[in-house]
Amino acid sequence: MPSDALELIAENRSFGGWHRRYRHRSAVLDCEMIFAVYLPPQAESTRVPALWWLSGLTCTDENFMQKAGAHGVAAELGVAIIAPDTSPRGTDLPGEHDRYDFGSGAGFYVNATQAPWNAHYRMYDYVTEELPALVGEHLPLNGRHAISGHSMGGHGALVCALRNPGQYTSVSAFAPIANPTQCAWGQKAFSGYLGDDPAAWTAWDASELIREHGSELSLLVDQGEADNFLADGQLRPEALETACREAGVPLTLRRQPGYDHSYFFIATFIADHLRHHAAALR
Amino acid sequence: MPSDALELIAENRSFGGWHRRYRHRSAVLDCEMIFAVYLPPQAESTRVPALWWLSGLTCTDENFMQKAGAHGVAAELGVAIIAPDTSPRGTDLPGEHDRYDFGSGAGFYVNATQAPWNAHYRMYDYVTEELPALVGEHLPLNGRHAISGHSMGGHGALVCALRNPGQYTSVSAFAPIANPTQCAWGQKAFSGYLGDDPAAWTAWDASELIREHGSELSLLVDQGEADNFLADGQLRPEALETACREAGVPLTLRRQPGYDHSYFFIATFIADHLRHHAAALR
Repeated sequence: MPSDALELIAENRSFGGWHRRYRHRSAVLDCEMIFAVYLPPQAESTRVPALWWLSGLTCTDENFMQKAGAHGVAAELGVAIIAPDTSPRGTDLPGEHDRYDFGSGAGFYVNATQAPWNAHYRMYDYVTEELPALVGEHLPLNGRHAISGHSMGGHGALVCALRNPGQYTSVSAFAPIANPTQCAWGQKAFSGYLGDDPAAWTAWDASELIREHGSELSLLVDQGEADNFLADGQLRPEALETACREAGVPLTLRRQPGYDHSYFFIATFIADHLRHHAAALR
Repeated sequence: MPSDALELIAENRSFGGWHRRYRHRSAVLDCEMIFAVYLPPQAESTRVPALWWLSGLTCTDENFMQKAGAHGVAAELGVAIIAPDTSPRGTDLPGEHDRYDFGSGAGFYVNATQAPWNAHYRMYDYVTEELPALVGEHLPLNGRHAISGHSMGGHGALVCALRNPGQYTSVSAFAPIANPTQCAWGQKAFSGYLGDDPAAWTAWDASELIREHGSELSLLVDQGEADNFLADGQLRPEALETACREAGVPLTLRRQPGYDHSYFFIATFIADHLRHHAAALR
């Protein structure tokens, strides 16, 4: 398959628009990938803005599309949603499938520098460059992009937005891994993908990026207070809060009592995020 | 576990209410079962009406709760949702798990009369008697019930409502198996559970029940026109339409262009069904 081709592998009518899954050959990741798109009804007659959704550990393009209940509001607002997969697929590197939090399903949206991962695990370039160019060529999008995500994908959304001023009109996250250099998930992933020197990690840590570079964006983050990964110290919204305060970056951090890390939490608040992004995308 | 006990096995905050999964010992099915409930925020302070949701082939209590996007509207309307499983579990009868459309995940909401199925496969009594009594005892419900479902569960919802005048304020269905005595799925299930004499089948066929007994209910049915099982002749909404017309039963049958059999179809129209039921449940 040529690297600029899209193969439609499934489609479902949804809220007057279309949920579609595409397969393509990624040159950046050197493998075949699948991603999903929700196109609102407005896309039948005009080009629409897009919200990128980056999913969390173990997910594929399917979780958000099936469980977030986002299509109805996206249809109302005229916003497309693009959901990439969470890692390269079909590469079968040594140990790639042994752990839920490293390797397949756990690409962490970085560009790996360490062998054997650096041959494929370049999810950052895939999500911020290759896939935007591909969907820009093939889908009825107007070139305006926002980005959001959950957990590992919340980390990814924040990092993609902070490293690329001007590329996204707005950024939000649900229970993001907000300070990965200081939690077990992040340290495991970054040492594997980026090597043992923590100096190479800070460019992939939202709290560190804000501390070092600030941002013109205002951040919207929801965090469930009953989230077991919050209690485990994997998410560290307090580090993001401190970094934003010190750098003067506007952060709306909503601590939601009783909510956990599940898609029920995301579904409850996704409409707020979609409206936040739609206002910026206009 | 005593047959009047409920064990809470999971809960998630969702749209201000709670999604909960319970395990219990079913005396009717002679096995342990799991079901799910969505309790809207109103249930914290008052007893609420309930919509029963019967799922389709291969499903468990989880599919609707995760994929239908129904919690938000249920929270707004103050309606609980109860999602039973689709067959007895853990019984391991000969051949029970060999087929997707018979045995586990495919109870068809009948009371089996044929061995070995009749020892456990009594999903009709479970859904219309045992489980209502159990949730009425343990959950903050006000005793008013409506019923809906999808595919095999649409068949189940229609049959439960038509066989029990007065038990449900309202009934609706998505792509129901509307005339199971005349389609391959139904014939396979009914011959296995009920025996080879088709005379025993008609009491479990919505179109036949309407033709024979009519109904005081008005039916709301959505059917996707791009549903591959419609094209295969498994659903037969036209038989339901004819039976309702001849019996003078009000049927709103909405044929939805482009929609298939998936949960994207259900999610698109579930709010209409919830509002239909909420109006009757008041």
